[in-house]
Amino acid sequence: MSQHKRILSGMRPTGRLHLGNLHGALKNWIQLQDQYDCFFFVADWHALTTDYADPTAIRQNTWDMILDWLAAGLDPHKAVVFIQSQVKEHAELYLLLGMITPLAWLERNPTYKEQQQQLNTKDLSTYGFLGYPVLQAADIIIYRAHGVPVGKDQLPHVELTREIARRFNFIYHREVFPIPDALLTEAPVLPGTDGRKMSKSYGNCIYITEPEASVRQKILQMMTDPARARRTDPGDPEKCPVFEYHKLYSTPDEIAQVTQGCRTAGIGCVDCKKILLTHVVEHLGPIWDKRQALEKDMDAVRASIEKGIEKARREAQKTMDQVLETVGLGKNV
Amino acid sequence: MSQHKRILSGMRPTGRLHLGNLHGALKNWIQLQDQYDCFFFVADWHALTTDYADPTAIRQNTWDMILDWLAAGLDPHKAVVFIQSQVKEHAELYLLLGMITPLAWLERNPTYKEQQQQLNTKDLSTYGFLGYPVLQAADIIIYRAHGVPVGKDQLPHVELTREIARRFNFIYHREVFPIPDALLTEAPVLPGTDGRKMSKSYGNCIYITEPEASVRQKILQMMTDPARARRTDPGDPEKCPVFEYHKLYSTPDEIAQVTQGCRTAGIGCVDCKKILLTHVVEHLGPIWDKRQALEKDMDAVRASIEKGIEKARREAQKTMDQVLETVGLGKNV
Ligand code: SF4
Ligand code: SF4
Repeated sequence: MSQHKRILSGMRPTGRLHLGNLHGALKNWIQLQDQYDCFFFVADWHALTTDYADPTAIRQNTWDMILDWLAAGLDPHKAVVFIQSQVKEHAELYLLLGMITPLAWLERNPTYKEQQQQLNTKDLSTYGFLGYPVLQAADIIIYRAHGVPVGKDQLPHVELTREIARRFNFIYHREVFPIPDALLTEAPVLPGTDGRKMSKSYGNCIYITEPEASVRQKILQMMTDPARARRTDPGDPEKCPVFEYHKLYSTPDEIAQVTQGCRTAGIGCVDCKKILLTHVVEHLGPIWDKRQALEKDMDAVRASIEKGIEKARREAQKTMDQVLETVGLGKNV
Repeated sequence: MSQHKRILSGMRPTGRLHLGNLHGALKNWIQLQDQYDCFFFVADWHALTTDYADPTAIRQNTWDMILDWLAAGLDPHKAVVFIQSQVKEHAELYLLLGMITPLAWLERNPTYKEQQQQLNTKDLSTYGFLGYPVLQAADIIIYRAHGVPVGKDQLPHVELTREIARRFNFIYHREVFPIPDALLTEAPVLPGTDGRKMSKSYGNCIYITEPEASVRQKILQMMTDPARARRTDPGDPEKCPVFEYHKLYSTPDEIAQVTQGCRTAGIGCVDCKKILLTHVVEHLGPIWDKRQALEKDMDAVRASIEKGIEKARREAQKTMDQVLETVGLGKNV
């Protein structure tokens, strides 16, 4: 894809980002912004599909997340960064796409039943939750995006978006929407401090903007290979979450040294972690500084997002003009 | 209900109205506009829920219907007359209400399966068709309407609107929406020229703005009591659709005269119809004149609807400001 290709991606406003988010999606976005015409958004309406009953944190989480995005290097001068609910045209297109979307496509959506089961403390048998992929399709095709960076688990959603876009073009005999491609992202998966997947609900996250002392403490207390119960027990780095971090942050020499030291009990876990810590702090330091600077100038942050919203709105309106003309609801008739 | 109470009602853009529409809903609207704060709209998005595959006529039908409304006496200076799809806030509220609407409420909606069966040439197993009552709820409560004039068959829809409004208020612990009441309208049901229900799909309509010659012809050819095969056969007015028209248009004396004449074969059907015709033409004459005058000044018509759209939008935005604050998506956070 060339620079003229448009990329679109969104994140639910979960609040402060953790290292898993940073390396999973955000780093990828930051790379993409130099290569493509990028649109990145806070999916706050999507947050409501599951958290409709207690939405009080959405706005706080929105700004916390945006600050983390910008602190980590997302540049609102390069990419269009905006908030979904501020571009009402998404809702309008969602309404129109709903008219042509067969219920069966939504009911057979694998994540639909899965999420319902996972989140079984919430009542998710709602119309909005079933229509989640319709809103997602609207989010994407309203910008005529060519590519959507996704992990493997989201492939079925992009497929549904493609089907909905194709069906619209087919029914109205007009190529209104380009069919977007999934851009499979191979991102490193960073484990949480307990070795499981890093996730807010497990309480095992390292946040990208938490205080240095707290990062130190979390890494020093991080789970290691259980075989190294004593300093003199040898271990296997491949069984240790700390080693996953080394792979990402440390130099090849250090990685070799840690591997060898761990296997021979030549290095203690604390020393091993201290090597890692230097790099993590090195890596996060600039993000911390940037976050602080941004917080001091929230007016500028808001202004840059306001600009993004306006740009997004203009693009969305351009598409909607065509869509409305196509479905017979144009203004000039 | 007092003058301060707000009434809301919409009609799908079916194009030119027939006498059934005139006496069924429109006359009622025209009365209501003097008593309440009325909002009347063209439900063009609703038309898409069933006619998504061939929407080319929607805009033409919209203006034809609006011209008929105004010709019949709906006054855009008294009521707010607007077009649904021009107030995007309906779509936004539809999206938000969808999040809290249980699927089961929509699936058990009696008109859902009924309409699917009736319109079985169209594929109506769509997400939008299932969500029709959610959009309808949004249409009504976005204006905080207190009353919705409806026929008996639409009572379940208003009930669903009430449930959705109640659920929203309940979930967010706040009386954002008044619970609207159904205003049951007892309107005379005018049969079509073949004695069946007047309906476009039966081809038995008399349109309120068709040329006089055509109205004459249709009434003269209208079905009568089959017992009066010959002029000398007596008939029963209660079995004759023409008589339904007499009840509506003729004087008590004429009605008595026709009843008696029909039963004794003292009057022929042609003469009976001519009495009716005089009144129908008298009644429709001013509507025809007004329609012609309006057509000559489409700019003024469009301007008055544009004003209605703006008024509706302002009211809708006022409500949405409260709704967004309530669900945590307000601007000022
Ligand atoms: S030495 Fe390092 S890699 Fe080996 S178990 Fe300890 S922390 Fe993990
Ligand atoms: S006389 Fe009049 S009411 Fe009687 S059957 Fe003829 S048209 Fe109908």
